[in-house]
Amino acid sequence: MPSRARPKGRGVPSVELLRLGHRAGRDPRLTTHLALVARAFGARRMYLHPPDPAIAERLAAVARRWGGAFEVVGVDDWRRTVREFDGLVVHLTMYGLSLERVAPRLARASHLLVVVGGAKVPPALYGLAGVNVAVGHQPHSEVGAAAVFLDRVRGGVPASEFVGAECTIVPRARGKSVRTARSRSRR
Amino acid sequence: MPSRARPKGRGVPSVELLRLGHRAGRDPRLTTHLALVARAFGARRMYLHPPDPAIAERLAAVARRWGGAFEVVGVDDWRRTVREFDGLVVHLTMYGLSLERVAPRLARASHLLVVVGGAKVPPALYGLAGVNVAVGHQPHSEVGAAAVFLDRVRGGVPASEFVGAECTIVPRARGKSVRTARSRSRR
Repeated sequence: MPSRARPKGRGVPSVELLRLGHRAGRDPRLTTHLALVARAFGARRMYLHPPDPAIAERLAAVARRWGGAFEVVGVDDWRRTVREFDGLVVHLTMYGLSLERVAPRLARASHLLVVVGGAKVPPALYGLAGVNVAVGHQPHSEVGAAAVFLDRVRGGVPASEFVGAECTIVPRARGKSVRTARSRSRR
Repeated sequence: MPSRARPKGRGVPSVELLRLGHRAGRDPRLTTHLALVARAFGARRMYLHPPDPAIAERLAAVARRWGGAFEVVGVDDWRRTVREFDGLVVHLTMYGLSLERVAPRLARASHLLVVVGGAKVPPALYGLAGVNVAVGHQPHSEVGAAAVFLDRVRGGVPASEFVGAECTIVPRARGKSVRTARSRSRR
């Protein structure tokens, strides 16, 4: 089994995502899933090109209910977002170098912008990215690839509850248990 | 960083998936993504309830082109698939026990059926499953959760090419390179 990307003892990098080529009519659920993955693994925000206020609002509602400060930020000029990013720009693509091979570079970065393409990726992106990384060299899901990437570089979903959550889950072997802020304050 | 679910030296378990509550009109892309994740991480097949021949055919085309024997098998009676499964049935749910906590049980299993619900999960599933597992206790993507689960228990995407592939990717730092069976036979 390959080792995790980040050596023990290193800090966890801060992560932002950039979703390119979103098609509002066709991809709302896939882009929503990508944003949920980003949030669950502790990313700070997801830039979305082109902007889609409906998805930004959906994720804002999730953050109000389940806590944290994750946000979806629409961008009109994605090249500018990439160029002005102050850290390592990582393009996830099945054509890139394997995650295991680039692990040492990732381990040195403290701030990552993870770029996730849609159906058609602008060829310029391969050159603009600091590194092109493949989570396996098979046809894949960008949602699945992003989840595995974030799990490897951030070391799993944060166990602590997200700040300001109205609802938190109480893990159970069977069935569901959700604690609301009101029931918690009664304790 | 939490350790991987499977201790070094253990064999990799064989995995099948069961996707419940698929809605052919609404979920084709999400279910396709789930199947691609299952295939990329080396699962043998994905059972799909209710059946959807269009998705089965789409994944058969992927397997013809990119190799391997992954298949999507429609099932009308999912309870029977669960009951007759000869191994550990793992239900992925944000309400379950954490992946880290159930890792020892997973490490002892040689054959896993990973059940992934849709929008509404039949309550009976929580009781029928051998274990209910959460990849984080946050609202999530079932595609992302399945990818991380498979990455942890199977130790990454298999590096070797899938058997009988017409196409294989040659990893590159920039751009795309695909080798076809014909160009390979010229070497």
